[in-house]
Amino acid sequence: MSTPTMKESEVDVLIIGAGPAGLMACNALARNGIKVRIIDQRSEKVAAGHADGIQPRTLEIFQSYGLADALFKDGAQLHTAAFYNPSSNGGIELTDRVPDVTAPTARYPFELTLHQGEIESIFLNSLRKFNIEVSRPVVPTSIKIIEEKVNDPSANAVQVVLQHNDGDQELEIVNTKYVIGADGAHSWVRKTLDIPMIGEQTNYIWGVVDLTPDTDFPDIRNRTAIHSNNGSCMIIPREGDKVRLYIQLDDKSGLITSTGRVDKQKATPELLLEIARKTLHPYTIQTPEVFEWWTIYIIGQRVASKFSVQERVFIVGDACHTHSPKAGQGMNASMGDSHNLAWKLAHVIKGSATKSLLHTYELERKKYAQDLIDFDKKFASLFSGKPRTEEHQDGVSHTEFLKIFQTFGGFTSGIGIHYADSIITQSQSQSTALNLKIGERLLPQVFMRAADTRPVEIQDLCPSDGRFKILVFMGNTSQKTVLERAHSVAEELGSLLSKFANGNVFLLFDILSISSAKKADVRYNHLPFLLRSHWSKALIDDTDATGKKGGDGYQSYGIDEMGGAVVIVRPDGYIGTIVPLDGISNVGSYFNSFIETE
Amino acid sequence: MSTPTMKESEVDVLIIGAGPAGLMACNALARNGIKVRIIDQRSEKVAAGHADGIQPRTLEIFQSYGLADALFKDGAQLHTAAFYNPSSNGGIELTDRVPDVTAPTARYPFELTLHQGEIESIFLNSLRKFNIEVSRPVVPTSIKIIEEKVNDPSANAVQVVLQHNDGDQELEIVNTKYVIGADGAHSWVRKTLDIPMIGEQTNYIWGVVDLTPDTDFPDIRNRTAIHSNNGSCMIIPREGDKVRLYIQLDDKSGLITSTGRVDKQKATPELLLEIARKTLHPYTIQTPEVFEWWTIYIIGQRVASKFSVQERVFIVGDACHTHSPKAGQGMNASMGDSHNLAWKLAHVIKGSATKSLLHTYELERKKYAQDLIDFDKKFASLFSGKPRTEEHQDGVSHTEFLKIFQTFGGFTSGIGIHYADSIITQSQSQSTALNLKIGERLLPQVFMRAADTRPVEIQDLCPSDGRFKILVFMGNTSQKTVLERAHSVAEELGSLLSKFANGNVFLLFDILSISSAKKADVRYNHLPFLLRSHWSKALIDDTDATGKKGGDGYQSYGIDEMGGAVVIVRPDGYIGTIVPLDGISNVGSYFNSFIETE
Repeated sequence: MSTPTMKESEVDVLIIGAGPAGLMACNALARNGIKVRIIDQRSEKVAAGHADGIQPRTLEIFQSYGLADALFKDGAQLHTAAFYNPSSNGGIELTDRVPDVTAPTARYPFELTLHQGEIESIFLNSLRKFNIEVSRPVVPTSIKIIEEKVNDPSANAVQVVLQHNDGDQELEIVNTKYVIGADGAHSWVRKTLDIPMIGEQTNYIWGVVDLTPDTDFPDIRNRTAIHSNNGSCMIIPREGDKVRLYIQLDDKSGLITSTGRVDKQKATPELLLEIARKTLHPYTIQTPEVFEWWTIYIIGQRVASKFSVQERVFIVGDACHTHSPKAGQGMNASMGDSHNLAWKLAHVIKGSATKSLLHTYELERKKYAQDLIDFDKKFASLFSGKPRTEEHQDGVSHTEFLKIFQTFGGFTSGIGIHYADSIITQSQSQSTALNLKIGERLLPQVFMRAADTRPVEIQDLCPSDGRFKILVFMGNTSQKTVLERAHSVAEELGSLLSKFANGNVFLLFDILSISSAKKADVRYNHLPFLLRSHWSKALIDDTDATGKKGGDGYQSYGIDEMGGAVVIVRPDGYIGTIVPLDGISNVGSYFNSFIETE
Repeated sequence: MSTPTMKESEVDVLIIGAGPAGLMACNALARNGIKVRIIDQRSEKVAAGHADGIQPRTLEIFQSYGLADALFKDGAQLHTAAFYNPSSNGGIELTDRVPDVTAPTARYPFELTLHQGEIESIFLNSLRKFNIEVSRPVVPTSIKIIEEKVNDPSANAVQVVLQHNDGDQELEIVNTKYVIGADGAHSWVRKTLDIPMIGEQTNYIWGVVDLTPDTDFPDIRNRTAIHSNNGSCMIIPREGDKVRLYIQLDDKSGLITSTGRVDKQKATPELLLEIARKTLHPYTIQTPEVFEWWTIYIIGQRVASKFSVQERVFIVGDACHTHSPKAGQGMNASMGDSHNLAWKLAHVIKGSATKSLLHTYELERKKYAQDLIDFDKKFASLFSGKPRTEEHQDGVSHTEFLKIFQTFGGFTSGIGIHYADSIITQSQSQSTALNLKIGERLLPQVFMRAADTRPVEIQDLCPSDGRFKILVFMGNTSQKTVLERAHSVAEELGSLLSKFANGNVFLLFDILSISSAKKADVRYNHLPFLLRSHWSKALIDDTDATGKKGGDGYQSYGIDEMGGAVVIVRPDGYIGTIVPLDGISNVGSYFNSFIETE
């Protein structure tokens, strides 16, 4: 019991840590109507530096929450990756320029960079619409899982004591159903709950400086990897005219102690820039009047042994995995964790899904974190290695480096994430929509609305609103028999879905129909109501009025026009399963495995 | 002299009327840093109904002020025009569906509809950033042009007395350099200054109702023209689920008096819908619980005999031209007037241009207004005419109607506007950039930024910021001789432009360079400073990293890669003149004809 002087409160989810991972979780839960609270030990959001790379898949995720425009407004876009290697006269020279993103299906074929503080602002602005502010500076002082309540989904099974650091150090007891630890690499939640990190530090030490460069280097606005005989350097353009330099530090830098640790006392941004200068030769770069931000770090590649305790406390982001920043994955993997977890928590809290749904969080995200680290090891080792030259025949060649860069393009872009089979990812009838891979995200595709021929991106019709999207590909409904089939499919589907959500189908499901009828003769209002519950839900696979957009959806999805398909998209945008039109009952079995029926 | 009790104030431009035309002018002037004030007799902005069609060129103009996103957010888009005609069984049937916009170069290939109040809100929000609010309810009571001051550009040559209708009817004297009368079809400014309207009323009488329809009509979300044996009707989809119906009224409607006037007493929206119902048969439409708005009008097609008095008082919008709403031109022509006038006023007020610049407003816009009315007469007569049937062999056939609809596509979209030769539109060297028509708007085209391969729409690099845009097409600067030519062109151009704006070239001019070098080998920093005053100003004509965007700019503009070209774009986005690289001195003669030199 609490002492009488302690304030006590209640919330469905308490999020500890208001960095990108915590804020993504908070925003997603709030959007799903969950009572959520978020605390942070810092008294203000991040002001400069820190992570800043947003990968193509993360852009799609932001867009699914209606937040991508804010990123596009100010972010820098990285379209081209340039590679520099030793030249014959002792300096470096341009070896190659290739697309920065190697993921042909990416909706946004570029990386975006934006200062972490701006990214946090985007979430903070969004949260204000839900009347949520971060409680800060506030730290947790204890956390307790109440064993006897763990199996009662409606119980506040976790008790956290908070300390408000903004005055008289007031303590507060929070009784909550769930806790999300989004408190970074040194996570208090993880440590308090004794979750070990598996993995190790590397010997690769890097310096980072943010500056507005005055330089004659021709690729200063591209993502540029420089392998020189005087060390390696990565250039990441940032918003406005800013640039971030990642600079490899070795023994010659004078910044490494005899025990292989970084001597942070000796380091200055001027010194880091001086090292970069040697790598950039014969190109020059001036010392700026101010360095916006700088740091030094040793690459650590570790994953937490588990991502939750009794599926009541979860850890996300840096709290459960750390890796090298140059692969540009950190913030993306972190926000991806929260995106994956939030809708599951929301369904369980609302009582629409069974608790087993929560188990899939660790299943899906721990494997991804491990894959990421395996990739990161390869990439970091190649990038830190010496370039291949006459003297160093065992060095890293450009061909080798480029191959890794491009082979892992799907992975580093986030586009290639593939979740393994589980209750929510059921590999069946893959051949019915050959190119929509079960476990991967829904491929972007432009369709036309049947009623007004307006081109729409299907991803935009599948927002992260917590609902499962049921895409019904009916074939050419301008043909009488096909239209009849659509009517019988709709009847079966409607009766089947009405078993869930007390029959209030549209609370849990959003239904889109995609006909292969043509704009000249389609009659959207001939469709059964379930397939056009609003006129904007009926789409066709045709070009727009100009003939320039759309028209190849069935083909690009690998769906046979005669056969049709039902595609179930999870609330986070990943394909849950695929069902043929003559096997509609499988839609029921899919949802029966984790959705509550009344 | 004023009486001692009267408040007296001073402003550079006083705008009378805060509808779309007045607000467009106000926003444009404020953005150009001009001291401007706007008054309106209404105590609030328009709440419903009124004009609501935004044409493709108007969308481009909004985008040039950074205001298009707000339109796209809520506006309905009209991509398809459908045509219904009498069917063999006494009702109507679908005859054809065609693209609603017939203007292949339109950046936005659709019309947009949005309630006039929302459009006014977009401007009002923008004006708040300049700390400008509409003074309302305020009416002008007298206007006086002070003859002896007219020729002194810096003098407040106009005196307007205002009456504040929000309390004690306070009077105020405003001393101003210029007045813009944007006070609608019954313009007080026009009447007070005795400017006659030329033209006449037609016999075409139309009813308008706004409603959210419950109907089985398949083209209710398309722009649909219905010619039935029971009258004509035009459907214009609007934002959300709303629709506007234009309904032809004839003698049978019971709403026309024996003298051919509308009997407004008898009219109700229910009655109008009842007439529409006969036209729509066999399709049905339910009577809604509420009609959002409705009206009845007689088409008047008139143009003011002049658009200014001594180039000190100007009239814009409905104050100087009225036409039928179904051609969807009203608001577009009105805002187009203001867009044309504002930058000219700004330059003259700032002293950078000679007063002769103002003369081009009437020259350009009066001709356009007259053309519009000529078109409108044809269109209104065809649309009001009987459909051709067995009995009516002299009726209007679909083929005939469609031909007019499409022939005038360039015109009705606003894309085809072509300003005649004048000091600011100098037809010379058209063959140097064959497809950039001098006097027409700059064709949209995607180029890549040389430094970071980011695709950019050239129209977005030519915002309505008051500056002339000088586009220098240099050819392939990866070739040494071509690069050398770029250096000498830049030198000549720089020395020539420095004669204007006291040598502060970038105050008056924005310079963009477009090389035909390829992304693989371009070196943006080899260009002379004038052609890359910021790294983002250097463009290349190549595809983006994915190969999907851009890459055909020289060709689509009709510019020879070897020859190059300099294209001068006026601050309103229209091509001012074209100059070959070996005739740079013509850039000087162009600006010398109206820009002040010190």
